[in-house]
Amino acid sequence: MNQGNILWEKSKKLIPGGNMLISKRPNLFAPKYWPTYYQKAKGCYVWDLENKKYTDMSIMGIGTNILGYGNDYVDEAVIKAIKFGNMSSLNCSEEVELAEELIRIHPWADMVKFARSGGEANSIAVRIARAYSGKDKVIFCGYHGWHDWYISAGNEKGALTGHLFEDLSSKGVPAALNGTSIPFEWNNLSNLKRIIEKNRDEIGAIKMEVTRNIKPSKDFLKRVRELCDYYKILLIFDECTSGFRETFGGLHLKYGIDPDISIFGKALGNGYAISAVIGKEKVMNAAKESFISSTFWTERIGNLAGLATLKEMKRLNSWNLITCLGEEIQNKWKLTAEEYGINISVGVIPAIASFKFNYENNLEYKTFLTREFLKRNYLASNLLFVSTEHTKLDLSEYFEILKKIFETISLRESGVIKEKLIPDNELCGETFKRLN
Amino acid sequence: MNQGNILWEKSKKLIPGGNMLISKRPNLFAPKYWPTYYQKAKGCYVWDLENKKYTDMSIMGIGTNILGYGNDYVDEAVIKAIKFGNMSSLNCSEEVELAEELIRIHPWADMVKFARSGGEANSIAVRIARAYSGKDKVIFCGYHGWHDWYISAGNEKGALTGHLFEDLSSKGVPAALNGTSIPFEWNNLSNLKRIIEKNRDEIGAIKMEVTRNIKPSKDFLKRVRELCDYYKILLIFDECTSGFRETFGGLHLKYGIDPDISIFGKALGNGYAISAVIGKEKVMNAAKESFISSTFWTERIGNLAGLATLKEMKRLNSWNLITCLGEEIQNKWKLTAEEYGINISVGVIPAIASFKFNYENNLEYKTFLTREFLKRNYLASNLLFVSTEHTKLDLSEYFEILKKIFETISLRESGVIKEKLIPDNELCGETFKRLN
Repeated sequence: MNQGNILWEKSKKLIPGGNMLISKRPNLFAPKYWPTYYQKAKGCYVWDLENKKYTDMSIMGIGTNILGYGNDYVDEAVIKAIKFGNMSSLNCSEEVELAEELIRIHPWADMVKFARSGGEANSIAVRIARAYSGKDKVIFCGYHGWHDWYISAGNEKGALTGHLFEDLSSKGVPAALNGTSIPFEWNNLSNLKRIIEKNRDEIGAIKMEVTRNIKPSKDFLKRVRELCDYYKILLIFDECTSGFRETFGGLHLKYGIDPDISIFGKALGNGYAISAVIGKEKVMNAAKESFISSTFWTERIGNLAGLATLKEMKRLNSWNLITCLGEEIQNKWKLTAEEYGINISVGVIPAIASFKFNYENNLEYKTFLTREFLKRNYLASNLLFVSTEHTKLDLSEYFEILKKIFETISLRESGVIKEKLIPDNELCGETFKRLN
Repeated sequence: MNQGNILWEKSKKLIPGGNMLISKRPNLFAPKYWPTYYQKAKGCYVWDLENKKYTDMSIMGIGTNILGYGNDYVDEAVIKAIKFGNMSSLNCSEEVELAEELIRIHPWADMVKFARSGGEANSIAVRIARAYSGKDKVIFCGYHGWHDWYISAGNEKGALTGHLFEDLSSKGVPAALNGTSIPFEWNNLSNLKRIIEKNRDEIGAIKMEVTRNIKPSKDFLKRVRELCDYYKILLIFDECTSGFRETFGGLHLKYGIDPDISIFGKALGNGYAISAVIGKEKVMNAAKESFISSTFWTERIGNLAGLATLKEMKRLNSWNLITCLGEEIQNKWKLTAEEYGINISVGVIPAIASFKFNYENNLEYKTFLTREFLKRNYLASNLLFVSTEHTKLDLSEYFEILKKIFETISLRESGVIKEKLIPDNELCGETFKRLN
């Protein structure tokens, strides 16, 4: 067992579930093989507890680090925040600057509220929408965090299927919330209309991601916006994951559809904890009529990291860089798969490059892929959050390894290889549906 | 108008309420006079946007900085986190270390979950308690953050009075939650018993602060624990504010009463964002049956700041230092008030030193005090979170200024001074009840 594995076994006794984020559990990659813990990260490289260096071709902090780990410009801004005091009895002026910058990027928005995690930001948005509209029901599509307002949908069996894990348990969420959050199907306008009609005059907001594992069909977002206007429902775009991947700002800028509220997290501070809720003035002002307040939302690091990240993204044109590279990777995946007769589906946001093995043995192949890459010092799965640091890489070795893996899978699938590729049966688990 | 004031006026147009934390709004101190924003903070000093240096005799980041601003030892640990990468696709091993340390300090606890804000940690605790017990109702006393589970009590008029602001609006919290959170009165055992009996077999947890503005009466905490055992209700102590003020860990250690879950925030990372939920194994394991997960909970800074803060607190015996100084300040407040015939009540946790003017003109006097101190380069109100940096101060100037203020208030109260002390009527607002 590697040191990471030993620590993971220990951690599971001290921390329920072993860590703080399901997406970073080793069982989602390659149980017993995945290094699990790091001591150092820089650029697109990660060093494990044994000081073994890996090239990170996987989740890159689960999408937090578009500029790579330890971006010098962002880190300098953060270290400045520390040297000049990251906290005080007074407020930091940089929160006003960051608010201005986000509004500049999104001209439809007038006001901003900051938090320190994506889940919190989602909850703030829902609170504001409910306060503004006076209506408690939320119709949603996609993944929106761990909070009660969202997970309550899981109290009804299967309601979160297709949005979160199949087997999600909503234990601990009050039954009183049942029926307050209602899922709708992606790209299914008539399904959405039916739900709206059924809950007429009770719906405060529609909350959705701008793109999920499938692109919005023609005019889908526009029609949703029209429905919101017609029925006087607020439209909230959760851009925690999609923001800054294809556009400088929310992905909705690409589609030209303005929401009433939009949410950012993950990439906004390039790995530093900062999330934001932006919205139209009349809507956001409802926040003043509710109690929304938290000590660590005033911490300075997030704001300075956010400002520096936005500047650096702009300077590099990062959204273009990562989209171009993501497209290249997606194409090479497809070509390599074709070459070896492997059936894969490739995701739709290039900078969140992902593919799925379309086989019953999906998890066997996924685990095999990760294990093989680990042998060659790559952190890799079927999901790659592209960073600007990846653009500096020579990807030929990565694709050489991938070819051999696809070849083996092809032989296994055709029956030439009879034995399981994971003889110890330590298969990885399913990850979030929307990311596959 | 000072620069802070100008920026505040601008900010209110960009950020609903003007900032992220109600306790840091200038209207709670001295509207139009309070500097509101800082550019630098170190030790117990704060520099405003005009580079004017103040001695902070007020909220010290609202209790986050027991070791003062910019503690060198903690900052070095954080800068190390940045240099070695604050984020990656893998987990940081320091979260396991910090979990171990918190369990070492609290031998009754076995497992830990981390978040980045106190409100989040409170919500996690409630989720776990509900998941474990299968019961949704929570009985609470005190202040526990901005989340729906808590603020829902405010849907019933006056239910949060004495716990939060008098005039709190709970707008935006679903009506479906009405009745799921029930307030009980501090030190009122029969009130608590009545509520339990009325909601028998529906209560998952009792959630409370260990001390509020009044000390627990003899055996109060013990009796609450006994009630919890008898009725099979989980006991949760929210130690976000009280933790590390009188003891190395939760204040419950002083009283020898073990809860089932305890929550820490604020001082745990000396100003860096980290909060923790600790609890007994069988209870905490219920977290595994619910979806509790967030990207930024894996960020490394909070863990390294937490570890360094605990080491530094231990080295300095900080809880003794700040308690001794807090007692000295409380006594001097009392003596000075006596000297000038001023009627004040002094709070009960010495390191959260506070007093209240027992006069109808309370807010006039509070505003006057803050304005007078500002003239002499002190940030001061009637609430002082004591830090180890304050122990290095010569407090004689502070008390000289206070004497003059108390003298003026005495003359005003007795009618010798006829004019209002705040002629422009720009009075401060009420702060949290529990802190006064």
